[in-house]
Amino acid sequence: MHSDRQPARWLADFHAAMVSRDKVQFQALFLDDSYWRDFLAFTWDIATLEGHDSIWDMLLHRLDEVKPENWRIESEDKPGDTAGAWFSFETAVGRGKGHLRLKDGRCWTFFTTLRELKGHEEKRGETRVAGAQHGVVKGRRVWQDGRNDARAELGISKQPYCLIVGGGQGGLALAARLKQLDVPTLIVDALPRPGDGWRRRYRSLCLHDPVWYDHMPYLPFPDHWPIYTPKDKMGDWLEAYASILELDIWNSTPCTHAEWDDTTKRWSVEVERDGRTITLRPAQLVLATGMSGVPNRPAINGQESFRGAQLHSSDYKDGAPYAGKNCVIIGANNSAHDIAADLWENGASVAMIQRSPTLVVKSSTLERYGRPLYSQAAVEAGIDADKADLIAASIPYRILPQFAKPVVARFRQDDAEFYGKLEAAGFMLTFGEDETGIGLMYPRRGSGYYIDVGASDLIINGDIALKSGVEIDHLSEDGVTMADGTTLPADLIVYATGYGPMNDWAALLISSAVADKVGPCWGLGSGTAKDSGPWEGELRNMWKPTNQEALWFQGGNLQQARHFSIYTALQIKARMEGIATPVYRAD
Amino acid sequence: MHSDRQPARWLADFHAAMVSRDKVQFQALFLDDSYWRDFLAFTWDIATLEGHDSIWDMLLHRLDEVKPENWRIESEDKPGDTAGAWFSFETAVGRGKGHLRLKDGRCWTFFTTLRELKGHEEKRGETRVAGAQHGVVKGRRVWQDGRNDARAELGISKQPYCLIVGGGQGGLALAARLKQLDVPTLIVDALPRPGDGWRRRYRSLCLHDPVWYDHMPYLPFPDHWPIYTPKDKMGDWLEAYASILELDIWNSTPCTHAEWDDTTKRWSVEVERDGRTITLRPAQLVLATGMSGVPNRPAINGQESFRGAQLHSSDYKDGAPYAGKNCVIIGANNSAHDIAADLWENGASVAMIQRSPTLVVKSSTLERYGRPLYSQAAVEAGIDADKADLIAASIPYRILPQFAKPVVARFRQDDAEFYGKLEAAGFMLTFGEDETGIGLMYPRRGSGYYIDVGASDLIINGDIALKSGVEIDHLSEDGVTMADGTTLPADLIVYATGYGPMNDWAALLISSAVADKVGPCWGLGSGTAKDSGPWEGELRNMWKPTNQEALWFQGGNLQQARHFSIYTALQIKARMEGIATPVYRAD
Repeated sequence: MHSDRQPARWLADFHAAMVSRDKVQFQALFLDDSYWRDFLAFTWDIATLEGHDSIWDMLLHRLDEVKPENWRIESEDKPGDTAGAWFSFETAVGRGKGHLRLKDGRCWTFFTTLRELKGHEEKRGETRVAGAQHGVVKGRRVWQDGRNDARAELGISKQPYCLIVGGGQGGLALAARLKQLDVPTLIVDALPRPGDGWRRRYRSLCLHDPVWYDHMPYLPFPDHWPIYTPKDKMGDWLEAYASILELDIWNSTPCTHAEWDDTTKRWSVEVERDGRTITLRPAQLVLATGMSGVPNRPAINGQESFRGAQLHSSDYKDGAPYAGKNCVIIGANNSAHDIAADLWENGASVAMIQRSPTLVVKSSTLERYGRPLYSQAAVEAGIDADKADLIAASIPYRILPQFAKPVVARFRQDDAEFYGKLEAAGFMLTFGEDETGIGLMYPRRGSGYYIDVGASDLIINGDIALKSGVEIDHLSEDGVTMADGTTLPADLIVYATGYGPMNDWAALLISSAVADKVGPCWGLGSGTAKDSGPWEGELRNMWKPTNQEALWFQGGNLQQARHFSIYTALQIKARMEGIATPVYRAD
Repeated sequence: MHSDRQPARWLADFHAAMVSRDKVQFQALFLDDSYWRDFLAFTWDIATLEGHDSIWDMLLHRLDEVKPENWRIESEDKPGDTAGAWFSFETAVGRGKGHLRLKDGRCWTFFTTLRELKGHEEKRGETRVAGAQHGVVKGRRVWQDGRNDARAELGISKQPYCLIVGGGQGGLALAARLKQLDVPTLIVDALPRPGDGWRRRYRSLCLHDPVWYDHMPYLPFPDHWPIYTPKDKMGDWLEAYASILELDIWNSTPCTHAEWDDTTKRWSVEVERDGRTITLRPAQLVLATGMSGVPNRPAINGQESFRGAQLHSSDYKDGAPYAGKNCVIIGANNSAHDIAADLWENGASVAMIQRSPTLVVKSSTLERYGRPLYSQAAVEAGIDADKADLIAASIPYRILPQFAKPVVARFRQDDAEFYGKLEAAGFMLTFGEDETGIGLMYPRRGSGYYIDVGASDLIINGDIALKSGVEIDHLSEDGVTMADGTTLPADLIVYATGYGPMNDWAALLISSAVADKVGPCWGLGSGTAKDSGPWEGELRNMWKPTNQEALWFQGGNLQQARHFSIYTALQIKARMEGIATPVYRAD
């Protein structure tokens, strides 16, 4: 049914329908049940329009300003159930890339991204800077002078246009992109060195995602980089990255308060540096403090009487001091499992208290099936990280479950014996309320799962004692007493109880009024556990305009840091350059 | 005349002639005037065999052991005066790549390189390490433990197999390759931080070669990297590189003496670290102390009576202190020009004393014509740095002049007006004794030229006073008196008088007996100025076995550091693994 040229013909018809503003013609091109996912190009938002009425409404509002043109097919997908193609296009202010999927000649999914602003293109390849200033120049300023000036001036005599709070991968990736766009940017981070956010975590931590998923912008990992980066190596990489990309960072500089001045359109941000309070006045403020908020430390009766150590998982470092000791982990997600295994490896007696079902997926299974776009095979097929990011983003969240469910079914089938043993050990399993697995649990709630790298076997064979389906009643001097009357002896209790929502940071640093105005961060509004509705169809408040002017949230894993920093950077650059950025909101 | 399949047919015939050891058949395949350049694959040397008799002799000696097979054309060159192709092949111990050029069906140039040792392949791509050790392991060692151990043990309780003296680009590139080959390697460097070799040079220095020429192994520069890297940025890059590649370096550690023990087959190398003398016992010693030897400081009558400052160019940092002062530069090559311009830019009165003709080429002209293999256009044509290195190396030095002369002629024509003005200003020009330009002057003597980035205009318009063709008679209290009786007033004299030969380092660190046994480093034996014969056809003693067992010289620019480190590393790895490495020498 699909001719080779079908997407090209469709694209031409689509352009014609837009030019003529012909609703009938236009709607004939889209399925009733169609989706337009847009990253900035049309909406100056990260948004998915669902259904051809919503799409038409958006276009009516935006066409005059966006002036899309030069639609051109770049490559066609291999033929399948749908006819897909990548295309490029231009708007009045920028250039974009996109993807479309046709079913029987009508559009099912449409995806548009703004990739650069006209007149503000990144200087690379042929347009890179000279570096040397040839010729002779009295009073020549050399590169090092510029770096020294930036260090001496930025935040002191010269205000950054953009201030990023937090120098993890999210902050660094965004700062790297802003640097290439000539946006004066300063990062402040409470820790002493770039990469310390990783270094200070527990000793055995490695990235749970494979290397192909984890590249930072501009500087891909070398080809021999390990599949799962150890946390200290990741710390060193980020530190080298900050140097190579010439990022301006104030380390050992906690941020204590921020306030928006609607008259001057500037933030006042207080930071503590070298024992002094410095007030910064950026035009844009980015919270890149991690997608997790403040550690959840549950209140349990008798906590004060417990004589052993109590740690939140974020403060756990190393199991060595607990050899021969009794340790109880409260929680059963990634950190809980990693810490339990680390303690066991160090000779502790370990019990884990599981309070609710956990999604478990074996790392080796994920590696085999889970991320075909991010694999050596993909690299060898010419799919680099940027291309993979675009392919992944071309599927709107609403229809992602139908792609995710068969994968979950395959996981369950392959690992049926493993799951059976886990359940036999009393472990409460879930594969997501609608059996959509980790692929949807991550955007919905960013927690609730364990990527198994070995701890599940310890639970199966009883090396880690599991207590599940029973509430904790109280702590005593030397243990945890459960509602069923049993007691788990404890020298150490680790609260692997997760974190509050990301907009905790807005409440802490700015005000609860602003945090409330912004509303929850992360989550799709799926109406599943820890992701209450209404449906948003995109991660709430992430990388896009919030209800607080000039406040941005940057967070998530390395893939998200890499991909979405493009769009946060373009939004901030457009505002700096005075380019109109009217945000289209469907409702 | 050339069919598409000609190289493939030739390669099959070539293999057949080798199998049958048929000299007549074999020699019919090669022109009388033919060249076989081999990097290790056949000779365990870096050598060019000239003429089909020499080639046949080498094969007779080496075929039984090398057992070449699986010759396969990988790609054919665009048709031209010659029919060229890239091929792969195997030997008994390794895998190689090569290139051939046919003229009328017979071979003119043949190029073979060993690229990896069987059973000792680098682990990358699909074979990269896991990083994380999945499963549970009592007493788990994590990545940071391994790095800490290496730092604590290497050179102390565990001897490096290879010791590299000098942590500039040559030492770092080699160490990076040895790391990927699991050769325990330590670098010692006198300076405090990796990259300081660049940082401590004069303020205005930028690389004279463009970015495409300068990539280090494994970690190419990002796509926005400036064309001409400023020296401090280069220093920071190398420091980040050392961290990312996990190189083991002792900085602030001068090497004072080395001695070979022919009984134990180990070196004794004394280094000064933290105020203590430590003796290292590596099996292989690499001098990566720079292709330049000890600074030449000419003796001139009256030097002691001069009351101003006298600096060798290597100690010159910054012109700022010399505003309004009289400065005399002795010498007229790259550093002389750069320093003269820097002083002039800082408001000094500058005179340059040219003692012999200089090759001058405008940087912009070089950029336009000089390095087509190392350019954005090459990158966009799919020629990465490694491919460019192989293409460049496929032309033996003997015939390089015939490729170089037309380029020089074009430079002279394009810049005729510029050269005319320079000569009118009294500047003594050369384009190489045989008009082969910088492309041959560099391998012959590594000096004698200026890549013009602006100082020539200062000479042309008289801003830099030039004194050429006159000897220096003596220094007085306050100036330089020339043989013609004129005096140049001077508050500062800069000796931009170059460096001694690289094997100075062997004399200084080991003994003059060993330095003499090794003989001169660098140079082709071309019989031109500063490159006396006999003809060698390869850079003497560079990256290849020397007359001193287990002593290696690593030096040169970034391109050489990148490319030739492959071969030095494979030679050292083969020796560590006990693979036979009989060095074939034609004479």
